Amino acid sequence: MTAGKSFASDNHAGAHEAVLRMMSRANAGDAASYGDDPWTERACASIRDLFGARGGIFLVFNGTAANVLGISLLLRPYEAVILPEGAHLDVDECGAAERVLGSKLLTVPTPDGKLTPALIAGRLGDRGDVHRAQPRAVAISQVTERGTCYTLAELRALGEFCRSEGLRLFADGARLANAAAHLGCSLADIAAPMDVLTFGGTKNGAVGVESVVVMAEDLVTGASFQRKQQMQLASKMRYLAAQFLGLLEGQVWLRNAAHANLMARRLADGVRGVPGVGLWQAVESNAVFASLAPDHIERLRCEWEFYVWDETAHVVRWMTAFDTAEADVDAFAAAVRATAADGP
Amino acid sequence: MTAGKSFASDNHAGAHEAVLRMMSRANAGDAASYGDDPWTERACASIRDLFGARGGIFLVFNGTAANVLGISLLLRPYEAVILPEGAHLDVDECGAAERVLGSKLLTVPTPDGKLTPALIAGRLGDRGDVHRAQPRAVAISQVTERGTCYTLAELRALGEFCRSEGLRLFADGARLANAAAHLGCSLADIAAPMDVLTFGGTKNGAVGVESVVVMAEDLVTGASFQRKQQMQLASKMRYLAAQFLGLLEGQVWLRNAAHANLMARRLADGVRGVPGVGLWQAVESNAVFASLAPDHIERLRCEWEFYVWDETAHVVRWMTAFDTAEADVDAFAAAVRATAADGP
Amino acid sequence: MTAGKSFASDNHAGAHEAVLRMMSRANAGDAASYGDDPWTERACASIRDLFGARGGIFLVFNGTAANVLGISLLLRPYEAVILPEGAHLDVDECGAAERVLGSKLLTVPTPDGKLTPALIAGRLGDRGDVHRAQPRAVAISQVTERGTCYTLAELRALGEFCRSEGLRLFADGARLANAAAHLGCSLADIAAPMDVLTFGGTKNGAVGVESVVVMAEDLVTGASFQRKQQMQLASKMRYLAAQFLGLLEGQVWLRNAAHANLMARRLADGVRGVPGVGLWQAVESNAVFASLAPDHIERLRCEWEFYVWDETAHVVRWMTAFDTAEADVDAFAAAVRATAADGP
Amino acid sequence: MTAGKSFASDNHAGAHEAVLRMMSRANAGDAASYGDDPWTERACASIRDLFGARGGIFLVFNGTAANVLGISLLLRPYEAVILPEGAHLDVDECGAAERVLGSKLLTVPTPDGKLTPALIAGRLGDRGDVHRAQPRAVAISQVTERGTCYTLAELRALGEFCRSEGLRLFADGARLANAAAHLGCSLADIAAPMDVLTFGGTKNGAVGVESVVVMAEDLVTGASFQRKQQMQLASKMRYLAAQFLGLLEGQVWLRNAAHANLMARRLADGVRGVPGVGLWQAVESNAVFASLAPDHIERLRCEWEFYVWDETAHVVRWMTAFDTAEADVDAFAAAVRATAADGP
Repeated sequence: MTAGKSFASDNHAGAHEAVLRMMSRANAGDAASYGDDPWTERACASIRDLFGARGGIFLVFNGTAANVLGISLLLRPYEAVILPEGAHLDVDECGAAERVLGSKLLTVPTPDGKLTPALIAGRLGDRGDVHRAQPRAVAISQVTERGTCYTLAELRALGEFCRSEGLRLFADGARLANAAAHLGCSLADIAAPMDVLTFGGTKNGAVGVESVVVMAEDLVTGASFQRKQQMQLASKMRYLAAQFLGLLEGQVWLRNAAHANLMARRLADGVRGVPGVGLWQAVESNAVFASLAPDHIERLRCEWEFYVWDETAHVVRWMTAFDTAEADVDAFAAAVRATAADGP
Repeated sequence: MTAGKSFASDNHAGAHEAVLRMMSRANAGDAASYGDDPWTERACASIRDLFGARGGIFLVFNGTAANVLGISLLLRPYEAVILPEGAHLDVDECGAAERVLGSKLLTVPTPDGKLTPALIAGRLGDRGDVHRAQPRAVAISQVTERGTCYTLAELRALGEFCRSEGLRLFADGARLANAAAHLGCSLADIAAPMDVLTFGGTKNGAVGVESVVVMAEDLVTGASFQRKQQMQLASKMRYLAAQFLGLLEGQVWLRNAAHANLMARRLADGVRGVPGVGLWQAVESNAVFASLAPDHIERLRCEWEFYVWDETAHVVRWMTAFDTAEADVDAFAAAVRATAADGP
Repeated sequence: MTAGKSFASDNHAGAHEAVLRMMSRANAGDAASYGDDPWTERACASIRDLFGARGGIFLVFNGTAANVLGISLLLRPYEAVILPEGAHLDVDECGAAERVLGSKLLTVPTPDGKLTPALIAGRLGDRGDVHRAQPRAVAISQVTERGTCYTLAELRALGEFCRSEGLRLFADGARLANAAAHLGCSLADIAAPMDVLTFGGTKNGAVGVESVVVMAEDLVTGASFQRKQQMQLASKMRYLAAQFLGLLEGQVWLRNAAHANLMARRLADGVRGVPGVGLWQAVESNAVFASLAPDHIERLRCEWEFYVWDETAHVVRWMTAFDTAEADVDAFAAAVRATAADGP
Repeated sequence: MTAGKSFASDNHAGAHEAVLRMMSRANAGDAASYGDDPWTERACASIRDLFGARGGIFLVFNGTAANVLGISLLLRPYEAVILPEGAHLDVDECGAAERVLGSKLLTVPTPDGKLTPALIAGRLGDRGDVHRAQPRAVAISQVTERGTCYTLAELRALGEFCRSEGLRLFADGARLANAAAHLGCSLADIAAPMDVLTFGGTKNGAVGVESVVVMAEDLVTGASFQRKQQMQLASKMRYLAAQFLGLLEGQVWLRNAAHANLMARRLADGVRGVPGVGLWQAVESNAVFASLAPDHIERLRCEWEFYVWDETAHVVRWMTAFDTAEADVDAFAAAVRATAADGP
């Protein structure tokens, strides 16, 4: 075990006090169940406004479910979703998509974890071939798995390409707040080219809540039934809603994300140029990917918690969170520097 | 809208303060995600001990998921589960079982909502017939959908019959605490004849958490993967665990259930013998089923919240909760009596 | 084993010589695979014309698949199909529909195996309730499981009701030819009120082929992919097509069905009025349902093959086929009479 | 359209006369349905003996279904099958595996289309990680997608590795006969290291039939129900069985395969060394893969039917069949040579 702040995942952090406080406030008396309560109404209306979503907002328990429910609005079983190799949906959800959707995931190798119109186009050759699952949607992650962000121009280009090809565009937004903070834009700006996306609360200071944001009105039919059948309808929904209300009031969601991003940049700055430490990706969210000598990794992990991202390339991932303090970062950066200085 | 306490459902109630308090306590610093934290370890160990479960404990978000995950440990897709007509799993979960399991549900008409060895035996004729889904498990609800409880002797008889027939026995325990309170027995007593059952927190004062209790050691293989694939693995699991810890400490779960049961009996007593009001089922949990004249139902519902259970037979369901006060019951019983006295 | 003609099922009969002859003719040289051959084109065009189908024709291997593929065009997983209790799709296909569609089947008790608008209406109460699978299609069998036929008026009434309620109408037509022969109408007459139906070849003299007939043009999207994904695309499709061509040429299909129907009536006539033998259903196809004393059933089955339909009511089912001879019927009827005369 | 023999696929060929003749012989009188007939008993017993299969033999309609049924005996939904990139099961079955099994397919890049213990080992890192589908089976194709064969030593090595790792070994044997002919070994030799494999009839002169061969006795439980639920149970099974009997009598299956292989070698020999024509793979079955200049491909396809296997590398696939004549091969080889000589 370790003494310091965990840099392993933003879900090692607890919940922001505004979230717990709002849950306590929501705990007053009776409320109708299954989302028919004023807390849910208020949270969904707020999210809807933030995104400019004409479809609707569906709160669910976790990120796997948000992704699967969102994509279930876009596909029939013989249709497939195109996504970059390494996408969380493909590799980190134990086959949930295959089981619940019965659909194939079509992965595309990418140089940097980002899909582009050209990369997608390369996966469209099978359309009309009865032996092939039919590409019908494209799924990206914003923030990507590598901690980078699609620019608004990149998103627009994807959206235009998808529309021109009859494809639907989906975004896994488990860390959408971090993207908005990085890009300095509104959630609506990011969401505009999308058909469906998710808006994560859990990694940004919630106890555990995600939202499926349906931008297109024609896709919302059946969504409430899909959520129930996919076992994601909370009976005491007010407590999911309250979490989002806690994050939305006073823009806690944005402040949390901006702070986590800032801490990641501080960490990157603290180790930049240190011999033996390479920064693997641009730092555009709350993740720092760095390459280190294997024995340095080993020694650091005796004291600090973080994941090895790529065993072969000796790349590690350091995540910051809304509650990462400057002192945590500085102590950790100092440890990295000390270890690197130590020699092999 | 109504002014008084809701008698519609025990999930209209909020969360018990012990639950919220424990969630706040769990909110200290970092914790490993996905259940690898001390809170989860402690909660699962406690539940395991309470049930004498040799398999394992799996926390999930809601009752639908608890049922589906539990049954997924018992069936291959071509196998079927036998359950009584009207079972929640069959009628109230929007086809979640069919979608996630790909299995058929075989319903049996019952006189009183309870399965018996004889009723189950009547559904076993198709075994070995390749055209028929193969009965492999039996699912009961304890408390039943009608608010009654299987006695320990009835449960033992079911368990013995199932074992003798090569069937697995499952129980939907969304209100298991109420059953234990009514029967005056331990959870282990109820669970002993079962292979898998669920233990509900949500309807008994939690914010939202249920547990799948795997009694048989040989059934636990794959359960953690099934939970993940079924989209029920919480990343910040400590908050699910904390809810159960809040309920378990000082036996809040039992006191909550016993209180709710007591309030149901008080309500039944308050309307018993009133002309025009018939008690439809024995009151063995926190539910009162009563038959009333249709226009009495209509008038009562202007002021009080409850469900009509059977439109044709004019049967209503009144649920009490852990936070139903004696004064709530007395006011509601008075309203029932007043309405009944009013004449048609 | 038995010496005489089987009265157990029309699938105990072999194939009509016209079918095998056409398969041999189709065996000349190469042909493109997966249905891109002239035999398939011709067979599908012919069936399309016979039905007046604006959608399309999809040949598959067996009746289970025809039903499941057909219904897959009508439902999303959270939607349900209403069908009469005892429907083949529900009880005789080992849960294929649940597994492949992930949907719930909603059964309705019927007095005579036939659905009516009123019976369907009684199953629509759950629409809009998020906890309930949403009724979206109605599935009947023509011929019904009891060997009776919906009249054209009954079919029209069902079609109108379904349209008015936003429901799709499907028919399992494993014995559709027998229905057309009985009603003295065209296949188009029967199909007119339907959205999708099946047209069976196997029980009517084919080696093994069924057709999914999509009446509505807007339902045909994706059908070819659904067939492939449902593992029903034949690589050497010409041999499925040839079977239908063999049946269609010279109206073999109609003559086969008319003959089988005639044999059933002859059998019914041969036992009508015999003491101890009750005719349970009107004889409107190639099935005769009769009630007999249990020991008479036992003795008859030593010599003749047929199924006991209802063990409790002592009802047996006698099926005739395209190749049942008058002499077969007469011998069997004589055996029934002799057994009945024998006394208990 | 083209005048000559198709080199596009072995399923463009018709059926061998021995197959049709046996189907006609099977067309005598009644036979019990669903496989309870003497033809099926005889065919399955023969295949069982040929393979030394202790489990059982299950006839199905096509190759997609044989693969999916076979693998369904090996996996629970959260388990995955490892297979080489480009495997038919992954790319050519329209997502059938995902839909019917609900499982993930884990592909491995290979230099030559063949899996090896080392390649498989590289995919096992996720075992025990709850976020990852759990590798449980390995699926190879024998003949591979590139027309090559695993040697018996390679198969044994795979079998031993799989057993040592707790993995099941499956083989897609759509062209297993060609492999046996090439290797000069028995089917039992090939099958010995396998847990389940398929034995194809369709591409080797049948009308349309495949067999799932279950080697391991403990895997056969539920297989007959799986087949029914997966919509692959033929009612007039005798005609599937007869096809295999036609192929097995007098070793037609082996002679057909050996002939097709010989024709492929003849074709390869006829174009070997021709400038501008490269042989891409060893010719170990009835497939020849060759690289040609794009415009040569275009010109050849005006007259001859074959597929372009790789648009980018300009690789074409030429398939021979049991009924490919020497004259067909010689004419086609001459055309290839003439086109190549023509210059760009």
